[in-house]
Amino acid sequence: MTKDIETTAEQGGGAEFSAKDYHDPPPAPLIDLEELTKWSLYRAAIAEFIATLLFLYVTVLTVIGYKVQTDPVKNTIDPDCGGVGILGIAWAFGGMIFILVYCTAGISGGHINPAVTFGLFVGRKVSLIRALLYMVAQCLGAICGCGLVKAFQKTYYNSYGGGANELQDGFNKGTGLGAEIIGTFVLVYTVFSATDPKRSARDSHVPVLAPLPIGFAVFMVHLATIPITGTGINPARSFGAAMIYNQEKAWDDQWMFWVGPFIGAFVAAFYHQYILRAAAIKALGSFRSNA
Amino acid sequence: MTKDIETTAEQGGGAEFSAKDYHDPPPAPLIDLEELTKWSLYRAAIAEFIATLLFLYVTVLTVIGYKVQTDPVKNTIDPDCGGVGILGIAWAFGGMIFILVYCTAGISGGHINPAVTFGLFVGRKVSLIRALLYMVAQCLGAICGCGLVKAFQKTYYNSYGGGANELQDGFNKGTGLGAEIIGTFVLVYTVFSATDPKRSARDSHVPVLAPLPIGFAVFMVHLATIPITGTGINPARSFGAAMIYNQEKAWDDQWMFWVGPFIGAFVAAFYHQYILRAAAIKALGSFRSNA
Amino acid sequence: MTKDIETTAEQGGGAEFSAKDYHDPPPAPLIDLEELTKWSLYRAAIAEFIATLLFLYVTVLTVIGYKVQTDPVKNTIDPDCGGVGILGIAWAFGGMIFILVYCTAGISGGHINPAVTFGLFVGRKVSLIRALLYMVAQCLGAICGCGLVKAFQKTYYNSYGGGANELQDGFNKGTGLGAEIIGTFVLVYTVFSATDPKRSARDSHVPVLAPLPIGFAVFMVHLATIPITGTGINPARSFGAAMIYNQEKAWDDQWMFWVGPFIGAFVAAFYHQYILRAAAIKALGSFRSNA
Amino acid sequence: MTKDIETTAEQGGGAEFSAKDYHDPPPAPLIDLEELTKWSLYRAAIAEFIATLLFLYVTVLTVIGYKVQTDPVKNTIDPDCGGVGILGIAWAFGGMIFILVYCTAGISGGHINPAVTFGLFVGRKVSLIRALLYMVAQCLGAICGCGLVKAFQKTYYNSYGGGANELQDGFNKGTGLGAEIIGTFVLVYTVFSATDPKRSARDSHVPVLAPLPIGFAVFMVHLATIPITGTGINPARSFGAAMIYNQEKAWDDQWMFWVGPFIGAFVAAFYHQYILRAAAIKALGSFRSNA
Repeated sequence: MTKDIETTAEQGGGAEFSAKDYHDPPPAPLIDLEELTKWSLYRAAIAEFIATLLFLYVTVLTVIGYKVQTDPVKNTIDPDCGGVGILGIAWAFGGMIFILVYCTAGISGGHINPAVTFGLFVGRKVSLIRALLYMVAQCLGAICGCGLVKAFQKTYYNSYGGGANELQDGFNKGTGLGAEIIGTFVLVYTVFSATDPKRSARDSHVPVLAPLPIGFAVFMVHLATIPITGTGINPARSFGAAMIYNQEKAWDDQWMFWVGPFIGAFVAAFYHQYILRAAAIKALGSFRSNA
Repeated sequence: MTKDIETTAEQGGGAEFSAKDYHDPPPAPLIDLEELTKWSLYRAAIAEFIATLLFLYVTVLTVIGYKVQTDPVKNTIDPDCGGVGILGIAWAFGGMIFILVYCTAGISGGHINPAVTFGLFVGRKVSLIRALLYMVAQCLGAICGCGLVKAFQKTYYNSYGGGANELQDGFNKGTGLGAEIIGTFVLVYTVFSATDPKRSARDSHVPVLAPLPIGFAVFMVHLATIPITGTGINPARSFGAAMIYNQEKAWDDQWMFWVGPFIGAFVAAFYHQYILRAAAIKALGSFRSNA
Repeated sequence: MTKDIETTAEQGGGAEFSAKDYHDPPPAPLIDLEELTKWSLYRAAIAEFIATLLFLYVTVLTVIGYKVQTDPVKNTIDPDCGGVGILGIAWAFGGMIFILVYCTAGISGGHINPAVTFGLFVGRKVSLIRALLYMVAQCLGAICGCGLVKAFQKTYYNSYGGGANELQDGFNKGTGLGAEIIGTFVLVYTVFSATDPKRSARDSHVPVLAPLPIGFAVFMVHLATIPITGTGINPARSFGAAMIYNQEKAWDDQWMFWVGPFIGAFVAAFYHQYILRAAAIKALGSFRSNA
Repeated sequence: MTKDIETTAEQGGGAEFSAKDYHDPPPAPLIDLEELTKWSLYRAAIAEFIATLLFLYVTVLTVIGYKVQTDPVKNTIDPDCGGVGILGIAWAFGGMIFILVYCTAGISGGHINPAVTFGLFVGRKVSLIRALLYMVAQCLGAICGCGLVKAFQKTYYNSYGGGANELQDGFNKGTGLGAEIIGTFVLVYTVFSATDPKRSARDSHVPVLAPLPIGFAVFMVHLATIPITGTGINPARSFGAAMIYNQEKAWDDQWMFWVGPFIGAFVAAFYHQYILRAAAIKALGSFRSNA
């Protein structure tokens, strides 16, 4: 009977939460020393390092290149509009996440972002050890990626802002923090939706092409919040750029790009696990028997 | 024999309507009191509320940010073309629908639009109770999403039009209404096509990646009709922006963004159910026996 | 043994042509009177009519809207770059083909283009009767779609060129014809590749998401040849716009937008059937026995 | 037991390297004379030729068309921003690779790039004979594609740079070479990830839509490095354009567009085979027994 409810629900309605035609994996342990002895953990960290390096390299190079092209002082021959525009920058961030999640998903889970790692840790999808190792690898990768851009574009890197995240003029700290929280919520909510084990069991009309919507979530948030904070929603990205750019304003605002994404990721994990998956109500166990 | 006809038809032809290798779910009841006792209904309404909030937040923030960047008075350093352009705005609307339909499809069916809910109600895919609850959740979500944008962009929100839908100069009411009807027809026709139970049975060369074409439908309609009405095709989006913007012109035109989308959704539901699915002819039952 | 060859071939090589792990449908009959008695044929023609109408409506409205926005005489407040650009126009054409092929594939095969219908007729995928009926429906749909745009944009429709295809200044007729031939070849080659029955049997690493590459093929060709002919590659699109625009130059060049696409479609059908599918060599039957 | 580890690993972690629920194809032989007698080899070379021809035709035509449209001397009526922009050019390169890999994957493996062929040869996915034949076909196709563009755009082809790759002013040779190495690494790493036989066995949440991320990888690299080298990452593309453009500067820099991509492809093949697939450690055979 619950099977029938599921089937009907797919046609435009919701699904009864207790109909279990899927299998939740057990929560990841907080600390699993066994994991430390496995090559797969270190390989995953290497993959996260390389992916975050490539992410920052391509995106920050796009940002700097765009600013060079559209600088009215530098360009007398080419028209101002020759650059890729903010639309192109948003594509660079979203598109790189699409391909890097696609490439690393089978090796490391495809986080490439400490906020995503934190959200999945809160949702007990990864152990504490793995989460910390990933975050270190991501931050180191981001630093190396930005360092490459500075080496390649040494004339312009610092004069065009180094791709660093800073609160823009005309916005207060609360707005910047809010923009980072909601932006990261959009991203981590999409990550949880895309990797939900319920999907494969239930979604006949919603196939699981996970990396594409995750990339689009990053693209969308950049379209909306580049004018506010330059869009962080990824502490490794903000930290790496700040390390290489190394100007006061970027460091002053740095806290915002760690606190905001971590709050957003926490709220997304809570929303997915306790509201949408109804873990809270399952725990109480009483709602359904009243129905 | 009818199976063979189906197979041939996939190679570029149509399909015989009476070859049933799929199962239509039964029509949703108009009023199902049992549904009211289930957590899944309320969870679905919450998901619609959050999704519509995020939809308006990201899209209207993109619109306002674009207008700030391209205002020739405000910008003396950056070139005019720094903004995301109408192309970027159209991507914001289409891309958000893609990821939000992807995220909420398994929970609520992924409507995020009262016109889609109305179309699926007309096609008997959702009950009246669910339809009304969704519409209320969508409108509340849209109001909150626009409210967030106003809070974040308070300097510019009202001076740049608040993302509200209004009939543009040079177009009469009939044109605006027509643009909304056809635009919503494109969207709801795509929704019906993407969620048709016939698809999984018959489409070996058309896999079901439903949220992507639905998002693209929204993207396309925005490219075409932003110069006419700003593109509504979603009464919650138009209503939420009008509530927060709250200027006379936006309210004067508001009827157009409810009547148009509802007519468009009704025609799309009729076209899909009675022409393409041949429900009318099946009811008569005589066409095939004559053949 | 041939199975093993197939498996190895997928890892980066070609496939032995005689390894038959798929089933070709029989060639469509030239004239099948039985087909005329079936509702599915007429329903398919209706679907082609509506799809081509929506295709022209959205795309030509985008073209006209863009030209209004970027006219330096009309626009004193908005910057020149406010419009969607040629990139936006190319997206409109490609994106609409993506969603319309997705929506109509199961009903009519999703042609929406007499050149595609002609190519599939040459490849014996559709009967002559169906091909002719589709072409009539597509042309009527295109006329109605352009008529709607003229009704909605009556002030600007004719002054901004009516979305009609014309050879641009600085190009000779041979170049225009060549651009149409190669452009249509790209499209019809993609259509044949996407609907090849070999795919589902052989492509473990190339899933069949047919409407997306077909839409992208249209997008790409528009990026390349809008500056030359405005990009036809679809005789219904060129004919409908010429009918409603009805200016001498558009009619003078009209032949190019029928001859070019039909030649391109013929060559693509030949290339796919006789080179890639090796039908010619299979007929000779001698190559493999020598091997 | 190893099966369980795999399942858990999908939820956000890595996978134990020794859990073999997939089958690696045997390495391709260096020289396989048997292959030379098969039609499938020559058909694959023809497909590579045609695909590279279409690739260069569409992309270089887009580049030249864009430069004509945005030339301030030529354009007095149309605004400067009428062209497709660098974003449009990047889409042309990425989008064409998407559709051409999609179309040719089943015939030739969809390389369309000597660097990809070299990377797959290093990874022992194709034989030496096949690799050399493909590279010749790709270079000939690229020459013909550029030749078509020159024939169609003879007035502008040479004056607008012929789509040739050259190191831009302000960058030294090391930077140009580095940009080509990393850009090709991104592409070939994506190719290896997308065609890894491990994917189908393990990735329940990462479906294999290989041509799309491969196309996006090309798109992303173009956004980032067009301002540095014009973006090669494909020796056939650089060679074909240099042959037809035939100016000293293009030939002087030509080595960079062969050496860079081949190094990048080699490193990507090494990274995938020896780090991610842990072939080195498997060979040592000792790591796991210590664990």
